[in-house]
Amino acid sequence: MISRVLASDLPRHVGAPVRIAGWVHRRRQLKSLTFVIVRDRSGLAQVVARKPAEHAADLPEETVIEVRGVVTANPQAPGGVELTEPVIAPLGEPAAPPPFDLYRPKPTATLPTILDHAPVALRHPRLRARFAITAAGVAGFRAALAERGFTEIHTPKIVGSATESGANVFGIDYFGRRAYLAQSPQFFKQAMVGVFERVYEVGPVFRAEPHDTARHLAQYTSLDAELGFIADHRDVMALVRHTVAGMVGAVAERASTAVSLVEAALPEVPAEIPAIHFAEAQELLARHTGRDPRGEPDLAPEHERWLSAWARREEGSEFLFVTGYPMAKRPFYTHPEPARPAYSNSFDLLFRGMELVTGGQRLHRHSDYLAALAARGEDPAAYRDYLEVFAHGMPPHGGFALGLERWTARLLELANIRQATLFPRDLHRLHP
Amino acid sequence: MISRVLASDLPRHVGAPVRIAGWVHRRRQLKSLTFVIVRDRSGLAQVVARKPAEHAADLPEETVIEVRGVVTANPQAPGGVELTEPVIAPLGEPAAPPPFDLYRPKPTATLPTILDHAPVALRHPRLRARFAITAAGVAGFRAALAERGFTEIHTPKIVGSATESGANVFGIDYFGRRAYLAQSPQFFKQAMVGVFERVYEVGPVFRAEPHDTARHLAQYTSLDAELGFIADHRDVMALVRHTVAGMVGAVAERASTAVSLVEAALPEVPAEIPAIHFAEAQELLARHTGRDPRGEPDLAPEHERWLSAWARREEGSEFLFVTGYPMAKRPFYTHPEPARPAYSNSFDLLFRGMELVTGGQRLHRHSDYLAALAARGEDPAAYRDYLEVFAHGMPPHGGFALGLERWTARLLELANIRQATLFPRDLHRLHP
Repeated sequence: MISRVLASDLPRHVGAPVRIAGWVHRRRQLKSLTFVIVRDRSGLAQVVARKPAEHAADLPEETVIEVRGVVTANPQAPGGVELTEPVIAPLGEPAAPPPFDLYRPKPTATLPTILDHAPVALRHPRLRARFAITAAGVAGFRAALAERGFTEIHTPKIVGSATESGANVFGIDYFGRRAYLAQSPQFFKQAMVGVFERVYEVGPVFRAEPHDTARHLAQYTSLDAELGFIADHRDVMALVRHTVAGMVGAVAERASTAVSLVEAALPEVPAEIPAIHFAEAQELLARHTGRDPRGEPDLAPEHERWLSAWARREEGSEFLFVTGYPMAKRPFYTHPEPARPAYSNSFDLLFRGMELVTGGQRLHRHSDYLAALAARGEDPAAYRDYLEVFAHGMPPHGGFALGLERWTARLLELANIRQATLFPRDLHRLHP
Repeated sequence: MISRVLASDLPRHVGAPVRIAGWVHRRRQLKSLTFVIVRDRSGLAQVVARKPAEHAADLPEETVIEVRGVVTANPQAPGGVELTEPVIAPLGEPAAPPPFDLYRPKPTATLPTILDHAPVALRHPRLRARFAITAAGVAGFRAALAERGFTEIHTPKIVGSATESGANVFGIDYFGRRAYLAQSPQFFKQAMVGVFERVYEVGPVFRAEPHDTARHLAQYTSLDAELGFIADHRDVMALVRHTVAGMVGAVAERASTAVSLVEAALPEVPAEIPAIHFAEAQELLARHTGRDPRGEPDLAPEHERWLSAWARREEGSEFLFVTGYPMAKRPFYTHPEPARPAYSNSFDLLFRGMELVTGGQRLHRHSDYLAALAARGEDPAAYRDYLEVFAHGMPPHGGFALGLERWTARLLELANIRQATLFPRDLHRLHP
């Protein structure tokens, strides 16, 4: 059997007999000609049947076929070649019609239809492209960190206590005991700084998020990193810059076809991403927007949008670090700002109007943890697993987390995070 | 501030003043000398204090310090260099004693002690090494598949139905509805063959495994791959061979220090891994072992061990494919063996006495799925999400799954899978 040639490789075989295989993307029957566009993982190939004997009778779109034929130059055809003198053989049953036409340049279905029928809908080249871009971004994340000596880890998603992360946890029946789905690998990645100094994890996290918004999911993929021997949160910010630049670079390099297909505008990552302190950001907002946010401990979504637009306008950057968030709204393990301890050595990275990354320096002294918990009126006994490691020598450290689906959504300027998720899970959706 | 030098880079700085940082691995006080061995992510560095002023007073093992000093050649020291004229500064509080001595060449604690105190215990260089090897193996898995045009995916770990995978599922309260933790990405990876043809996922899977054995976990990391346009399961076996060879190669290349430290004997992966049909394997077992297993639909653990030893002896291979497992014990989506439909186009890969990989060809025609479910007396309505995609054109396809922790355990010949898991979850263990 001659080996299969991919659609994108056909131009290298002009004049030769080949075998291709894929899905019937589109079939058009003219008076004496049949055009069959075959879709495979590399792209599209045009097959032209001129004689009745060459016409396969029953080839609805999405039917899987293989075609033997001769590669013939045709400047009008996609890629400049087409398959002539075809012998078409189905590799399965004739396909049922998809939930919407997959061959049209843009998907015509609503988001609920796409999500309900995701296993088929995702075959649409423009929908599929998003996830080729996602995969390239993750590869860039790993490569950027591997280059800096990070080790990949895999940590438990079932945890015995809900205390680390607070509310909105999913409960599990764990062999008759109560357990929870992990909301983040925070505890584990900090502990692993004691082992490898520099670690990362790509894995699912779970939030029993009761709000039905365009930017929350019950499960998402968290890209987490943590490193020891930092001076403060600025070392973590430098790592975030390096990593995000690596992700954008990997998308440009490994997913260029997908990027062109969805007409994505990839951002430039400045050599140094502009940063603004939370207090300064609030002053800016008070001066330039209708409402004075001072006294509020966090930024509202509309404030993130305003600051992001400001950075684009004033600094020419689609990325903006906001640093020094008030301790009041940050988790107890956050390191305070030494000179102004009501603020923290933490940051968010805003990208195109939304928080993409959260990170910062963590406490590293056991006594500081005990004091932080006491100040919040919490019982250290509930954090026994978490605290043990800090009694045994931990370096100054910090890290960050980046939500993968949100990254793709902002990169491709998609209105809803579900558009950047293969099979989303939310308040209402548990299928497919 | 002069930038930090890693222990392993010190030989390149002989004669120069440097700064190192890490954990006090071992401190030995002689009459007029103090030796401090500093451990960082790259290895160990020896610091020698000769004058009283150089001696830091309170440096119990595991305390995090930084040391400025001069790199001095000393053939007796680890790496042939040591730091002299040191100025030692702690970066945190004096550390509490670890659960067992981390500086001894081999960990002296029992497995329960190691697991109870994993965040600290894993700092032991020989324990840590296992997970450097694991990380290298995963990198090899991804690289081997990326080279063959595979796309990485991230699929739901919360699923609406327990039917795909049968018993032993963990139930979740999902916003007041019943949901389950996914036992495998089987459905999703098959569906994604329709989108990308070739996909893989590295992620957690969950088994409410009621047996307390040395080889089962309630959560493990599954390395899953699936590909379309195969002739039969032998194409999947060829991919497994390529992937496992890539994993072994990556361990040799990226984790050589760890491999030496744990004195691991890496296997050779034959260009073609020997394969034996299930029926033949049973005949061999009947002929050469005390018991006749014929009529049994699966291999017992002792049979896997015997066959593995046989392949090593007869074929000089630490790997053995067993093919054609009876359909009776394989999931309903398994493709039967065309000539002998009581057997299947499936396989296990045995490695050092144990099943490492399970895989095979899947059904790809919608009507075959309906017939397979009917034959098992199952209601296709319960599989609605799973079945939809097959009505819309799916190519012949197959795939495999490899348990990451089991891989590391076999590679390093560890008796218990928990020794190859950072923070194991099992019937009894939910902490740390």
